[in-house]
Amino acid sequence: MTEHNLENTIALLARTPAALNALVRDLPETWTSHNEGGNSWSVFDIVGHMLHADRTNWMPRARSILQSGEAQAFPAFDRLGQVRASEGKSLGQLLDEFTQVRGESLNELRALKLRPEDMEKRGQHPALGVVTLSELLATWAAHDLTHLHQISRVMAYQYRETVGPFRRFLGVLRCEGHGES
Amino acid sequence: MTEHNLENTIALLARTPAALNALVRDLPETWTSHNEGGNSWSVFDIVGHMLHADRTNWMPRARSILQSGEAQAFPAFDRLGQVRASEGKSLGQLLDEFTQVRGESLNELRALKLRPEDMEKRGQHPALGVVTLSELLATWAAHDLTHLHQISRVMAYQYRETVGPFRRFLGVLRCEGHGES
Repeated sequence: MTEHNLENTIALLARTPAALNALVRDLPETWTSHNEGGNSWSVFDIVGHMLHADRTNWMPRARSILQSGEAQAFPAFDRLGQVRASEGKSLGQLLDEFTQVRGESLNELRALKLRPEDMEKRGQHPALGVVTLSELLATWAAHDLTHLHQISRVMAYQYRETVGPFRRFLGVLRCEGHGES
Repeated sequence: MTEHNLENTIALLARTPAALNALVRDLPETWTSHNEGGNSWSVFDIVGHMLHADRTNWMPRARSILQSGEAQAFPAFDRLGQVRASEGKSLGQLLDEFTQVRGESLNELRALKLRPEDMEKRGQHPALGVVTLSELLATWAAHDLTHLHQISRVMAYQYRETVGPFRRFLGVLRCEGHGES
């Protein structure tokens, strides 16, 4: 048993859809449809990615650990899968779907009634090798935070010139993304 | 007139209190009372700083530009002033006060009915020299984003070990803060 407290993880996962709703729903498109240049991601792209990851990555991998253990590697996660899945949708639709899918995922997770010993069960990650259920679930929460971090940076980027000389006081404008997208 | 659209700035500023509420109110203290080590800031400290900045920095400086122009330098902003102002309070109290103070600030800003030519009015920043009202107001919004960026990073830091080998996929865990606090 690691120090991982599953209730803390669920508490964070449960708040993310409402936090994204409060932050970006119905915001002017300046903030939500522009990216950091090139093929980097906009807020719209990031929310689509989070939705896609909930649909195809987190709980499916947790199920794989509980059902197959290390016998079978996780299916690879298509990190660009949201491009197709988001096509033709509005940001509001993606937020609605994310709220719904996250709620269903957490209902399923709670219904598993995981015991401390379950958290040490192991699966086979296609790139990382052996990972535990504990690590997978903690990463789900940290993945929300990495993309909230990215969203705040992509939004701030839209004002990189507008802030004029204040730029040097704004740490977020010196963040280079650390390979987040 | 710069490209700065004041409505876009207000739209973001108006959403930040609700976004912070949705993200951190009543979260387990693992997430909100721990920092990144040393004298770095916790979520509690950051929310206190944002509240303090709304009380003593943004609208007071906007007023100074409109009333005194460049004749008088802004009073210096005490970036550690929230330590005293937050003492003995709960995170919930800080969030309530932030919601109220931000609402009052935006009411005052809207009541000014700023015209495009007002946005070019100039003030004297104690460290940066001449800045415009446009730059000050854009920075207020970007300052929200820099601290949302910091909050997501400080929270993710609490899971830096818990995520195990997934760490290398999580950009937020490679962020070094860029002098945000």
